Amino acid sequence: MRISELSKASGVSIPTIKFYLREGLLPQGRLVAANQAEYEEDHLRRLSLVRALAEVGDLPLATVREVLRAVDDPALPIHAALGTAHRALGPDLGQVDDPAVTDARAEVDRFLRELGWDVAPDSPGRHELAVALATLRRLGWPNAQARLFRRYATATDSLASYEVRRTTPRGATRAETIERAVIGTVVFEAVLSALRRLAQERHSAARFRANTEP
Amino acid sequence: MRISELSKASGVSIPTIKFYLREGLLPQGRLVAANQAEYEEDHLRRLSLVRALAEVGDLPLATVREVLRAVDDPALPIHAALGTAHRALGPDLGQVDDPAVTDARAEVDRFLRELGWDVAPDSPGRHELAVALATLRRLGWPNAQARLFRRYATATDSLASYEVRRTTPRGATRAETIERAVIGTVVFEAVLSALRRLAQERHSAARFRANTEP
Repeated sequence: MRISELSKASGVSIPTIKFYLREGLLPQGRLVAANQAEYEEDHLRRLSLVRALAEVGDLPLATVREVLRAVDDPALPIHAALGTAHRALGPDLGQVDDPAVTDARAEVDRFLRELGWDVAPDSPGRHELAVALATLRRLGWPNAQARLFRRYATATDSLASYEVRRTTPRGATRAETIERAVIGTVVFEAVLSALRRLAQERHSAARFRANTEP
Repeated sequence: MRISELSKASGVSIPTIKFYLREGLLPQGRLVAANQAEYEEDHLRRLSLVRALAEVGDLPLATVREVLRAVDDPALPIHAALGTAHRALGPDLGQVDDPAVTDARAEVDRFLRELGWDVAPDSPGRHELAVALATLRRLGWPNAQARLFRRYATATDSLASYEVRRTTPRGATRAETIERAVIGTVVFEAVLSALRRLAQERHSAARFRANTEP
């Protein structure tokens, strides 16, 4: 297909496609004339992946490039490629030199051990949880959060189990599996956050409109 | 307390506190000598709130300022103040001129109506869901996502209901309620995303290590 058709099929504007081509996020098309390239289904899929990462996942281009490199590296085991996507998705909290976070981290590690979750010792999620927990402690939320963490863990565990099975059918090729898993990770994180905020809106509307407004 | 004690109690470095003071995110302390200010509990609470927004929520300072303004505006109903926080938290997807998103938006609106969720017509979550849905459609995920959306909705609904009740006890002042609700929104969104990624890691480890690696 021509670039105009690629644009139509992907919903990505021609200038943006040209930008992705220049940035190497999308492979060049096959030249069929001096000034005209032909694009294939593969281009459309890759473009949709780039768009999912950059737009839905709100990732900076350097991070999109890093994830694509992991997706494209045939030597990288699937699990490691997914790890790259996870690392890219999380916030960059940096190194925090805060004893409260160090304490909270020990607690998070214990919590995950109690849950029986097999996750790497350097998974960024551990540190994110520790920063969140330290924040809550500091604000004087001593008890509520333990029960909330457990509820959240139970819910996400069941969603993740279902999602991993649904989004990556057995028998798919390595490339397909990684692509789908990466997209699932990015897109459903956005879905989950959006739904959570909508659900919060609905519940706080019910609580506060009645409670404090005339 | 002195600025050094405020720093210790909050885990925020003195240069960062000075930066927040300069930026007006933290009110000035009470001058007790030419070059020495005294800070109160209120400063500590506000500093923890700023930190939660900027660090855990990963929000840019301009957005933190906007949320604080909503928290501090006594004329703003609680529900509206929370709306400001929600708007600030979501990704800025901009206006998308894409018919696939327009179609998906109609579907999202129908979905939320079917769920019976009372959310504003302009809640940003609707658009975020539409962009996510259009992305999945484009990538050829026609069926899986309907069931996934529903599962995610059920899970987030129950979490939000529990969280709203837990984090904002009845009888709290307006300021406390908003502060707690804003912190809950920001911090538990981080908790939820981190736990989801950890849960995904655990389930994809189980699936792919066994499946495709020697």
